[in-house]
Amino acid sequence: MGLSSSLEANGRRAVSGILALALFTIATPAFADGLVENVNGITLDADGKVIRFNAILIGKDGKVTELLSKKDKLPPQLDFRHDGKGATMLPGLIDAHGHVMPLGFQLLTLDLSATNSLAEAQAAIRDYAAKNPERLWIIGSGWNQEKWGLGRFPTAADLDTAVADRPVWLTRVDGHAGWANSRAMEIAGVTAASKSPPGGRIELSGGKPNGIFVDAAFKLVDKFVPAPKPAERDVALGEAQKKLLSQGITAIADMGTTMDAWQSYRRAGDGGWLSIRIFGYAGGIDAMVAIAGPRPTPWLYDDKLRLGGVKLFLDGALGSRGAWLKKPYTDAPGQTGLQILAPAEIRNLMVRASMDGFQTAVHAIGDAANGEVIGAIEELAETYKGDQRWRIEHVQIVDPVDLQRLGKHGIISSMQPVHQTSDRTMAEARLGQERLAGAYAWQSIAKAGGKLAFGSDVPIESADPFAGLAAAITREDANGQPFGGWRPEERVTREQALAGFTTGAAYASFAEGKVGSLTPGHHADFILIDVDPLLASPAELRKAVVKETWVGGRPAYQNATVTPADNQKDGETR
Amino acid sequence: MGLSSSLEANGRRAVSGILALALFTIATPAFADGLVENVNGITLDADGKVIRFNAILIGKDGKVTELLSKKDKLPPQLDFRHDGKGATMLPGLIDAHGHVMPLGFQLLTLDLSATNSLAEAQAAIRDYAAKNPERLWIIGSGWNQEKWGLGRFPTAADLDTAVADRPVWLTRVDGHAGWANSRAMEIAGVTAASKSPPGGRIELSGGKPNGIFVDAAFKLVDKFVPAPKPAERDVALGEAQKKLLSQGITAIADMGTTMDAWQSYRRAGDGGWLSIRIFGYAGGIDAMVAIAGPRPTPWLYDDKLRLGGVKLFLDGALGSRGAWLKKPYTDAPGQTGLQILAPAEIRNLMVRASMDGFQTAVHAIGDAANGEVIGAIEELAETYKGDQRWRIEHVQIVDPVDLQRLGKHGIISSMQPVHQTSDRTMAEARLGQERLAGAYAWQSIAKAGGKLAFGSDVPIESADPFAGLAAAITREDANGQPFGGWRPEERVTREQALAGFTTGAAYASFAEGKVGSLTPGHHADFILIDVDPLLASPAELRKAVVKETWVGGRPAYQNATVTPADNQKDGETR
Repeated sequence: MGLSSSLEANGRRAVSGILALALFTIATPAFADGLVENVNGITLDADGKVIRFNAILIGKDGKVTELLSKKDKLPPQLDFRHDGKGATMLPGLIDAHGHVMPLGFQLLTLDLSATNSLAEAQAAIRDYAAKNPERLWIIGSGWNQEKWGLGRFPTAADLDTAVADRPVWLTRVDGHAGWANSRAMEIAGVTAASKSPPGGRIELSGGKPNGIFVDAAFKLVDKFVPAPKPAERDVALGEAQKKLLSQGITAIADMGTTMDAWQSYRRAGDGGWLSIRIFGYAGGIDAMVAIAGPRPTPWLYDDKLRLGGVKLFLDGALGSRGAWLKKPYTDAPGQTGLQILAPAEIRNLMVRASMDGFQTAVHAIGDAANGEVIGAIEELAETYKGDQRWRIEHVQIVDPVDLQRLGKHGIISSMQPVHQTSDRTMAEARLGQERLAGAYAWQSIAKAGGKLAFGSDVPIESADPFAGLAAAITREDANGQPFGGWRPEERVTREQALAGFTTGAAYASFAEGKVGSLTPGHHADFILIDVDPLLASPAELRKAVVKETWVGGRPAYQNATVTPADNQKDGETR
Repeated sequence: MGLSSSLEANGRRAVSGILALALFTIATPAFADGLVENVNGITLDADGKVIRFNAILIGKDGKVTELLSKKDKLPPQLDFRHDGKGATMLPGLIDAHGHVMPLGFQLLTLDLSATNSLAEAQAAIRDYAAKNPERLWIIGSGWNQEKWGLGRFPTAADLDTAVADRPVWLTRVDGHAGWANSRAMEIAGVTAASKSPPGGRIELSGGKPNGIFVDAAFKLVDKFVPAPKPAERDVALGEAQKKLLSQGITAIADMGTTMDAWQSYRRAGDGGWLSIRIFGYAGGIDAMVAIAGPRPTPWLYDDKLRLGGVKLFLDGALGSRGAWLKKPYTDAPGQTGLQILAPAEIRNLMVRASMDGFQTAVHAIGDAANGEVIGAIEELAETYKGDQRWRIEHVQIVDPVDLQRLGKHGIISSMQPVHQTSDRTMAEARLGQERLAGAYAWQSIAKAGGKLAFGSDVPIESADPFAGLAAAITREDANGQPFGGWRPEERVTREQALAGFTTGAAYASFAEGKVGSLTPGHHADFILIDVDPLLASPAELRKAVVKETWVGGRPAYQNATVTPADNQKDGETR
């Protein structure tokens, strides 16, 4: 396949590039005692209290030794000193819900997320196909008919006008639907006789498949796309790491880790080029057992990698009307979405994981799905009394009668602030006003005693955590709409928002003793940025520039477009 | 399945046992400089020259610092000293061809290798089934109708008289045939209408399957046996490691590594209980790519584990008449064995591996198979000129006209001395005298310039390397038969035999800079035994007692039945 051949040649080169990145301009000797000084340091303690500091001492093990204020004395021996030039230092931000390999492949394939109309998308597809004549399949993602204002799904015919001679297969922005052209459907053997599989839907026009495949139907076409080779996976991982580090993210909960992805992570760990921390949640029980075996893996590569849990799906997404609702969709009266697992099934899978000590993270978007997971947790919590940290992923639409139940049993609500701003108008259309009282209800959940962890769902949204922080504290989108915020009572404070992307996200993956707070004994994972997130305006916060990202006490990213905060004196002592 | 339930309960316990083993009675501090003294030390250098010494200095990194003679001065600082009490020290022995997980499962299931007749086997099976009422399948291995003097394969009817109510599935000693009872065939859906698959044979009696499934037909029944769970695999790995260490083996080339096995090895490495060195050869190209990806893995866990090559099968085995011969079997005139891969296929697979830097190890037993592999290597060597170390596994029957060709292109003949003594009478029956001139032709291959690596094919034979050494220098079996040795011109010297199990086996897996010779900078992997293999009689050699086995400068096994050679003075200096 074209993707293979073109990427494979670049495989070693890209990996070399990653290694080179790790070396970059700030020369910190391995196993050095060091100081990063002259910073506006901010971190939260376990209780969410803000701690401010001006310098950080890093030990030979890459962990925080001490936080210093301006008046504190420095130790007599230092292997390196680095001047932060007054930048704000935060703990490395943690994305509590993302997809590392899909991000990497998005960076390597056609990205339609910036298109604003079907015509724009068609032009982009035509252009991409022309520029990549060697690719046998045109693969891409990021389309969103809601953003286009199309009022319907796009069709195979729409795609055929852009590219007809090669198969085209494009994943919707939410990952819950695929859009095929006629050639792709032909290769997949999809005809008018094809049946929608359980938990999925082949969209029809005039009784014939029209090119859109929702949820479980997605794989009808997807399985015919040539699988990427390991070398391509490694390139994708390298790209994802670079992107995340450049956005100030040093750790990510990887939702739906596959064996193939895991093997890439291990190659990176074994080869010394794993530069972010990945908290793996296997894509189903079979993957969990194949990857980790009888119990979670240990923390590997100095806490860079672990497979500690399993991701399960209870429903689909709101955009494709796959979210499982208690009552029919307002804009599709006959539909209540997809219940992917029966009550006994979801419980059996959760028990299977819990018995062997794995954490469960259940995707639940609709109010019926959330009520069902909460019910399952309530039942299981009677048997599994240990520190289970039951996670619900997305928790987007909750029946107000269920909100209080999220405050019990230590349930973690893993939510993505930017989804709220992206989904706002769609949610209103799908649900009508009366069901929005429990929609993206961050503050209500926090007040009920629920534990919040914030993420991006990258690559469904950009991983940019500053957009997430801004959305969390405003419930306004990047254009400041709606002014004053959508259902503003659900805004969180700046400290809550920061906790969601640091201490809360670390706790959600059993990593609170390792990262998320710049605390002596924790890894020295931090970023230097040009704004103070506790003081900056939301607009300033959205424009935050990540100047440097450090992982494990060593520089992992430096923004080439800013003046390096670097008048380091290697080996100097005072 | 019964095996599952009974083993799973023991999973953690057994792994704990392995950890406890590593601690044992000789207290060597981690990262210590130490001395093991008062030994009759023997090692070979890269040229096969014998080096004798009396003590070995071990560095904090677990590697050999220096070999000392009695008159050498000791360094002033030592963290530990250990008295070898005059025992002979050899480099840890390396098995150049074995199967780690099958050994582990053999140790956990019914082992028929000690049975001397069908009646004995039937009694053992009946007894085992009675003692293991919870096992839903009776699984075992090690049967050999040749050893029983049966003159035919056993049948399902023979098995039904032992156990009829539960499925029974027993693997032949060579791993190339399975023996099922009627219940197992029923579960597998095997009937008179079943067809032998390509590369395999369903044995028939009166036109109906009689319970024996050869080579590729093996899986017709085997795929219905419930797969072991990861916890059971870990128990099996622990058992295999204990067994090998107790036999003086510190490293093994694992032929046909599966992803499941690899995941066990990694769990052992990640968990700190990988106690032997495993040189992995993936079971086919798909497994190779799944396990290692685009190129061999690095050496992992301080050189304990690597996936560096692929094992390919070109034919079957002699016992089940699967070995591919140039002319028909003497005792089965219509048959020439199984050619598992066409000429283009074997070349394509070898190219696929070599392109990505993987070593190839091709199973070839019959003279046609060996001639074919040699021809393929000769062709490929023109393109792949680097240090390929083409391996042929077994090399049992070689047409004398092909022997010289084994001396070129750096071909490694990976052979198992004990197979010669086990197979002798069968080989005579299968081949007739005229074809034996190139049978198990160790010395002819060495004289042609071929590189020898010796192993056991465990669990097909016992891993006992002292039996292998004795067979290699005598070509007599454990009873001294035939007196003077079978085709004694093919005996090797004691030094050649030792090299086969040390330096030769290390070289065969690209490990010659790491293990196989006690040389400064190599890992301090060694054994203490009660005989000098360069002086002892073959009978004494066969009875060698392994007193201690050390891996990476730390004790890994101590024989509980011998007086510990231990008057260690921890932390003493002189």
